[in-house]
Amino acid sequence: MELYSDAYFMNEAFKQAKIAFEEDEIPVGAVLVCRNKVIARAYNQTEKLRDVTAHAEILAITAGSNALGAKYLPECKLYVTLEPCVMCAGASFWSQLGELHYAAPDPKRGFSLLSSSILHPKTKVYKGLMAQESKELLNAFFKKLRN
Amino acid sequence: MELYSDAYFMNEAFKQAKIAFEEDEIPVGAVLVCRNKVIARAYNQTEKLRDVTAHAEILAITAGSNALGAKYLPECKLYVTLEPCVMCAGASFWSQLGELHYAAPDPKRGFSLLSSSILHPKTKVYKGLMAQESKELLNAFFKKLRN
Repeated sequence: MELYSDAYFMNEAFKQAKIAFEEDEIPVGAVLVCRNKVIARAYNQTEKLRDVTAHAEILAITAGSNALGAKYLPECKLYVTLEPCVMCAGASFWSQLGELHYAAPDPKRGFSLLSSSILHPKTKVYKGLMAQESKELLNAFFKKLRN
Repeated sequence: MELYSDAYFMNEAFKQAKIAFEEDEIPVGAVLVCRNKVIARAYNQTEKLRDVTAHAEILAITAGSNALGAKYLPECKLYVTLEPCVMCAGASFWSQLGELHYAAPDPKRGFSLLSSSILHPKTKVYKGLMAQESKELLNAFFKKLRN
């Protein structure tokens, strides 16, 4: 079995963010990985679904649980291009997520502004991979929105 | 137009919690009310859907937004039988919820343990209505689970 790197998976999440960009959604993408395999891909769809809960992470957790037939995801890794908000961090808590990898920090609504204890105590956190590209894509989106 | 009271709406949420109880779900129910009308009813379905994000509040916000065709809910009131967790409080933030009414406090996972700034600054909070009944239903559920 070929083993993929964190960079590979984050790039898969970034591809999802680019789809969001093309569809005029705030460009955040996520993939959920279980045993070296992507089991869910999702991007922010709050506009299309007119649903504030349709963040990439929530959609990936729901789809991944459905794919696995399991509520809990202790062997799964979530790769997401932006630091999760409180809602998404709370969802990852309930899922008992194994690893959270996020690219760009979110200085306005990131969960870590409030408390890192929002996450499950067993969730390992990694950050910074593809942070620059992810942030630039967000900046380009908001620039497009203003014009 | 007949005007309904907060007690009426909380009782509607409680009816949802009782459905959850009957279906062996942690008994939490919610209704979303807009202009004196229930636009969504939901109960916790994390077991049935095998999805940790399927809390009553998330389902009610998603269904209510769908019913209104609107992402934001500043004129809506959410009635829920248990204090929302961080995930659900975060969802209510994004929805710009007008009013949050909850029955029983959740001393383990309630959002207020962390920070009340998880809620949107414009969301008014009311608590305690039907707290006793809601807590007893939860206690009965966990007692049933242990037996």
